[in-house]
Amino acid sequence: MKKIIVLIAVCLFSCNAVSMAAATEGIKMKDTLTVIHARKSVRNFTGAPVTAADLDTIVRAGMAAPSAVNMQPWSFVVVTKRGKLVELADGLPHAKMLSKAGAAIIVCTEPKKAFEGSNDFAIIDASLAGENVLLAIEALGLGGVWTAAYPDKSRMKHVREVLNIPLDVIPLNVIPVGHPAGEDKPKNKYKKEKIHQEQW
Amino acid sequence: MKKIIVLIAVCLFSCNAVSMAAATEGIKMKDTLTVIHARKSVRNFTGAPVTAADLDTIVRAGMAAPSAVNMQPWSFVVVTKRGKLVELADGLPHAKMLSKAGAAIIVCTEPKKAFEGSNDFAIIDASLAGENVLLAIEALGLGGVWTAAYPDKSRMKHVREVLNIPLDVIPLNVIPVGHPAGEDKPKNKYKKEKIHQEQW
Repeated sequence: MKKIIVLIAVCLFSCNAVSMAAATEGIKMKDTLTVIHARKSVRNFTGAPVTAADLDTIVRAGMAAPSAVNMQPWSFVVVTKRGKLVELADGLPHAKMLSKAGAAIIVCTEPKKAFEGSNDFAIIDASLAGENVLLAIEALGLGGVWTAAYPDKSRMKHVREVLNIPLDVIPLNVIPVGHPAGEDKPKNKYKKEKIHQEQW
Repeated sequence: MKKIIVLIAVCLFSCNAVSMAAATEGIKMKDTLTVIHARKSVRNFTGAPVTAADLDTIVRAGMAAPSAVNMQPWSFVVVTKRGKLVELADGLPHAKMLSKAGAAIIVCTEPKKAFEGSNDFAIIDASLAGENVLLAIEALGLGGVWTAAYPDKSRMKHVREVLNIPLDVIPLNVIPVGHPAGEDKPKNKYKKEKIHQEQW
C-alpha cells in the first residue's frame, strides 16, 4: 500500500511539473491579441539595461513587417551608450525619459529605396515596422514609446546630427526601450462608432 | 502489482492529457514574435466566409494601436457582402483576390482628427492600426494582404465611391481577409546591414 501511495505521489508531482511548465511558458509567450491590447506607451523606466539579444529580437520583428512591393526601405539605429541617449534627449522635448531607458531604437526610412521612390510608401512601410518594434518590446516584457521625429524638421535635424544619419534618410521616430517601472497602463480605445459595416 | 501498474498507467495518461491540452492551446494562442514572423501577404483564399466575431476581434486590435497624442484619427469599414467585394475589386488592379476573400477591411484616416490636423500623423497612426489588423488576422489563422489605396488618387476615388466614404476621409488601404488556401509563405527579410549600432 505504501508503495502505491509513493508511486501516485510521484505521478501527481510530475503532472504538476508539466502544468507548471506550461503556465510559465504562457507568461513568457503571451499570445498576440493579448500583447496587442496590453501594449502601452511606457515613459517610466527602472534604469536597468536591455540585453543585446533582446534588442536584436526587437529589430528582427521590425524587419518582418510588410512593405509596398517588398521594397523594405527601413533601417534601424540601436543606441545603448548612456552619453548618446542623453545627447538625443537634449534635443527632444518628448523623449526626456531616454535618461532612464536602457536603449533607444530609431526607425529610419529612405524614400529613394521605397516603391516608386515614394515618400508616402517610405513612411507607411517604416510605420508598420515601427508597430512591430513596439509589439516585440511589449512581448519581451519591456516597455517603449514612439516619440516622433518625423515630420518635425528640428527634431529630425537633431537626431540626424547626434547619430550621423544622412540627409536622404528620414529618422521617423526615437523609441526609448527599457524595463517598465510599472506606472504606465494600457488604454481601452475601443469606439464602436469607428466601425462602419458594409459602407461608411 | 497489477493495481500499481494500473495506477501508474492512469497517472501517465493524465500527464499526457495535460501536455496535450497545453500544446493545443499553443496552436490557438501563438506568441507574438511567432505571429510577427509567420505573417505573410495572403493572396489566395479558399472562398470560405469570415465570422463577424473574427472581424470584430481584428478591428478591435486595430484600435489598440498608439497614435500621436492619442488622437485615434482612424476608422474601419468592414465589408462582407459579395457584391460590394466584387465592386471594390473592379477598380483595384492589385486586389482581384477580393473575389475569393471572405471579407475586406478598409483602414481609413482623417487628417482633421489627427494631432495638429496633420496628414502625416493621420497616415502614420492609421498605418500602425493597419499593422495590428494584419497581425490579428494572422493570429486568428486567417490571411490578409495590405493593398494600397493611398496615395493613388484613382484608387482612393474608387474606394470612396463604392463605400460612400466622405472626401475628407482617406481610405488608406483595402485588406482582403479570408481563409488561406495555403499557397502563400512568409519571407525571411532579415538583413544585417539594415541595423546600425550606436550610430549610422
